[in-house]
Amino acid sequence: MKQSNLFGRTLREAPSDATTPGTQLMLRAAIARPLAAGLYTWLPLGFRVARKVEQIIREEQDRIGAQELRIPVITPAEYWKETGRWDTLEPVSFRTKDHNGRDYMIGYTHEELVMHHARNEILSYRQLPAMVYHFQEKGRDEERPRAGLLRVREFVMKDAYSIDRDWEGLNEQYWAQHGAYAKTFARMGLDAISVESDTGNMGGDVAHEFQVLTDVGEDRLVFCTNCDYKANMEKATRKIESAAAAPSNVPAATPIATPGITSIDALTSSLKIAPKDLLKTLLMKDLTGNVVAIVMPGDRELNEPKLRKVLKTSDVKFANDTDFAAVGAVPGYIGPTLATLAEQGPLPLGLNARLLVDASVETRPYVAGANKKDTHVRDVLPGRDFKGETVDVHDVREGDPCPKCGGRVTIKRGVEVGNIFKFGPYYAEKMKATYLAEDGTHKPLMFGSYGIGIGRAVQTIIETHHDARGIIWPLAVAPFQIHLLPLFSKDESVRESAEVLLKELEFMGLEVLYDDRDDSPGVKFADADLIGIPFRLTVSARTVKENAVELKRRDEEKATLVPRGEIVSKMRSLVGERRR
Amino acid sequence: MKQSNLFGRTLREAPSDATTPGTQLMLRAAIARPLAAGLYTWLPLGFRVARKVEQIIREEQDRIGAQELRIPVITPAEYWKETGRWDTLEPVSFRTKDHNGRDYMIGYTHEELVMHHARNEILSYRQLPAMVYHFQEKGRDEERPRAGLLRVREFVMKDAYSIDRDWEGLNEQYWAQHGAYAKTFARMGLDAISVESDTGNMGGDVAHEFQVLTDVGEDRLVFCTNCDYKANMEKATRKIESAAAAPSNVPAATPIATPGITSIDALTSSLKIAPKDLLKTLLMKDLTGNVVAIVMPGDRELNEPKLRKVLKTSDVKFANDTDFAAVGAVPGYIGPTLATLAEQGPLPLGLNARLLVDASVETRPYVAGANKKDTHVRDVLPGRDFKGETVDVHDVREGDPCPKCGGRVTIKRGVEVGNIFKFGPYYAEKMKATYLAEDGTHKPLMFGSYGIGIGRAVQTIIETHHDARGIIWPLAVAPFQIHLLPLFSKDESVRESAEVLLKELEFMGLEVLYDDRDDSPGVKFADADLIGIPFRLTVSARTVKENAVELKRRDEEKATLVPRGEIVSKMRSLVGERRR
Repeated sequence: MKQSNLFGRTLREAPSDATTPGTQLMLRAAIARPLAAGLYTWLPLGFRVARKVEQIIREEQDRIGAQELRIPVITPAEYWKETGRWDTLEPVSFRTKDHNGRDYMIGYTHEELVMHHARNEILSYRQLPAMVYHFQEKGRDEERPRAGLLRVREFVMKDAYSIDRDWEGLNEQYWAQHGAYAKTFARMGLDAISVESDTGNMGGDVAHEFQVLTDVGEDRLVFCTNCDYKANMEKATRKIESAAAAPSNVPAATPIATPGITSIDALTSSLKIAPKDLLKTLLMKDLTGNVVAIVMPGDRELNEPKLRKVLKTSDVKFANDTDFAAVGAVPGYIGPTLATLAEQGPLPLGLNARLLVDASVETRPYVAGANKKDTHVRDVLPGRDFKGETVDVHDVREGDPCPKCGGRVTIKRGVEVGNIFKFGPYYAEKMKATYLAEDGTHKPLMFGSYGIGIGRAVQTIIETHHDARGIIWPLAVAPFQIHLLPLFSKDESVRESAEVLLKELEFMGLEVLYDDRDDSPGVKFADADLIGIPFRLTVSARTVKENAVELKRRDEEKATLVPRGEIVSKMRSLVGERRR
Repeated sequence: MKQSNLFGRTLREAPSDATTPGTQLMLRAAIARPLAAGLYTWLPLGFRVARKVEQIIREEQDRIGAQELRIPVITPAEYWKETGRWDTLEPVSFRTKDHNGRDYMIGYTHEELVMHHARNEILSYRQLPAMVYHFQEKGRDEERPRAGLLRVREFVMKDAYSIDRDWEGLNEQYWAQHGAYAKTFARMGLDAISVESDTGNMGGDVAHEFQVLTDVGEDRLVFCTNCDYKANMEKATRKIESAAAAPSNVPAATPIATPGITSIDALTSSLKIAPKDLLKTLLMKDLTGNVVAIVMPGDRELNEPKLRKVLKTSDVKFANDTDFAAVGAVPGYIGPTLATLAEQGPLPLGLNARLLVDASVETRPYVAGANKKDTHVRDVLPGRDFKGETVDVHDVREGDPCPKCGGRVTIKRGVEVGNIFKFGPYYAEKMKATYLAEDGTHKPLMFGSYGIGIGRAVQTIIETHHDARGIIWPLAVAPFQIHLLPLFSKDESVRESAEVLLKELEFMGLEVLYDDRDDSPGVKFADADLIGIPFRLTVSARTVKENAVELKRRDEEKATLVPRGEIVSKMRSLVGERRR
């Protein structure tokens, strides 16, 4: 293909809002262009990559027996209402109405739709197991689209769905997908590792994510430095020693004056104590407005996904002034004591809210808020001075003991390039999807789902495959295999020689981008490095005279001269040998 | 592939609302399933057909140098507002808002988006010509989805866009697409003919449609029986003899009492005249509510697309009671006389509206409404008794003279399977999309667009390729090439023999659906006929004994026995020889 015809021009400078190195290169190399925040058009060069990524995914899905189908983007509300996700997905989805007033969601995902078809198509155990998938646009109204194609508001996902008779079948298909994912990412040049993850708003219990480690990743991942434990921070736990018996010599809780001291920093420096000796109490509310108080040590951070799971809600927010007033909390001085206990006990004031006590709170005296302006309380003993439900809602941190072996954990950043969910009968029960089992009874269809976003995979490949000059595509997903650069001379010899070579390469089935532009060698080399095609062939007056072609790999610094008579078969073997 | 695993079951009976023979077969054969009116999921069998249709289109687009890209489904309102289509497409499109209140359209088509990218990517004449295309979902809120996949509310369209320096370049790419379309449809087994068509809400002037003739088609097509004239009814004209001089001996217009006679039928039988001797006056209004009166002979039908074009509006409706009152029209007795003329002349009452006189109205006396209850007028002479703008807004009908040669025209029904539009500078001017020309000036990008709907193509193939028992797929788009049916015997010999044959066929790269189900021969044969795979191979106790395989083409009645040793190479050559 002639480069002068390519729709989409390379840019010298990236737009100033391109925050990650990969985003800058993605835009400069004309891979995609934004139409609005989080809405991107694939330009032809980028779409060639996207199609190769898609084809790798398709081959690995077909290999495990999945069947491709295609469900619409516009999905009727009625199916989402059966599972309750019409409401829970509202904050993150796009909605539309037809001119008769009927409601639709732009598919955020497609579980409900597959389950609907399954309950109509699958009548008997003889039709199971089944596995289907499609490549389809998803709409997600992300509050903060970021990093080019990494987090967007519309993207094509490969989503697969397994349907089984029982847990055994589901486990088999779940792990078949796990294996297919490992192969899929390896083939596209991504070093993806699978970690346990939270199921979020998907329902079900068991889920894994495939994560590629990179500093631009949004996800925090917890790894044990000793064993094979790894988990997303949203799900990770740490080993917590079983509670010691309450010490008997703790003095009674005593109010202390702390005028104007409302932050942990101010409190620790004023009282000369460490953050871990403080209790902070957070007021949070769920999607329906219920307010809960969470008590945790001053040196621990709240993990919202874990809290959402505890509260069985799809969103939690910090409480506002009205909520504070409603439960009798004083901003800056909020403390764990319940109103009922405060009435009987030594603590001055209490809180009218459900009280969750994080598992990292130990049975020892702390300083805590008094629920009274300018006042804290010393020697607050958990269990004696307040009681609540124990929950695990804190972030694991660097150095914490591994929940599996007790070794130290470390934390890294990653991009989630794929996820797999084991739902079991969750959707079938909500949607009354059963099959006639061999024993004559009706049983729920066991369900799993499996997603990979195309654009995110491509952006992650760029983020992890580039240098300062441009992208370095893995061969299997490169937009072209060979970039042929003629450095035109005054006579026509270079052009003629290059065009014959182009024909020979294309005749061998190789994918060649031919830079036919009348630009300087500097411009051509810079664009070649930016676009990042794996093999660059240069034809110049010098190489023509020497009856050779200059070959340079994008991932190596040195170029070599290859005799003209050998170059085509050499390229054929280089492209062939590295094909997967 | 094993038929027992196929997701999607064949149906004995079609749902009662399946109106066309092809829709019944499409649903019975598990090609697609509705989620709601006009929203269909492709089941795996149908999606294999859709993918083959897509690939044929892609190959023919690539062959003429078009580059594939991909634009989102969710498109920002701002681009549509530049051309005014944000408003004009409202009645037929789906809209959505994000949580920040910004407006989007589910792409009804993608001209504005391509033009937006073109104005950013194309700076100079050196980058032209360009041609891009994508396969993407379109949302269209059709009032009346019908006939399975023929008219739906969401469908994947291949839409291509040509961008050129000038008319000459545009003509070249337009006719290149015309040629590509002819090849594309021929390859998928559709006998499509190109006809001139109306541009509808697309803008521009020149357009062609590719039509497949079938009684289930919604479009009416006008063909000359003598020359090569052919056009969609929405655009077709007829030869009209130039107006004769007004006859001088027509008596003055005279009111006549017609109490309770408000229909053409009643009027013609009461006055004993033919419909062609009556004038009917229709009150219509455009999208903005302007009312116009259209006068035409009683035996002619209004052509709304032609009227829309005259009124430069995207929609026309019949006027309602309020409109009638506003212009002084009396339902059942409406006539063409203008109020201003009525005051001066012999006619009792007049109409306060813009008056359009259809070209089929001749200069001779007619009976017309008097705009007065229970009254008509005799001897109304066009030009003498009323004047208006002459327009061509009537339907051509069977036997009318051809506008090109004067021969007789005939009318047939067709399905529009593709359309191509030559816009010229229409979009560029509205969207300020220019390029730097060779002469140093900035010129508008010349634009064309070219669409094919995948689902409609598949449904049209079914409508034109079936018999009473089922679909008869053309080989190039068949979901599988071979349907292998073992008629299981009590011993395992048939199963073993069939499974060896399956492996041999698949090893040769042939696509085989293997009916491994424990069903009766009758069920298997009926499903094979319904699904319509081109070649059926049957293995039974008898064929095993005779060391042969039974081969039957779906499009022939007779089966033949082929020696087992020859069947694989025979199938390879049968599939190969008919491949395109």
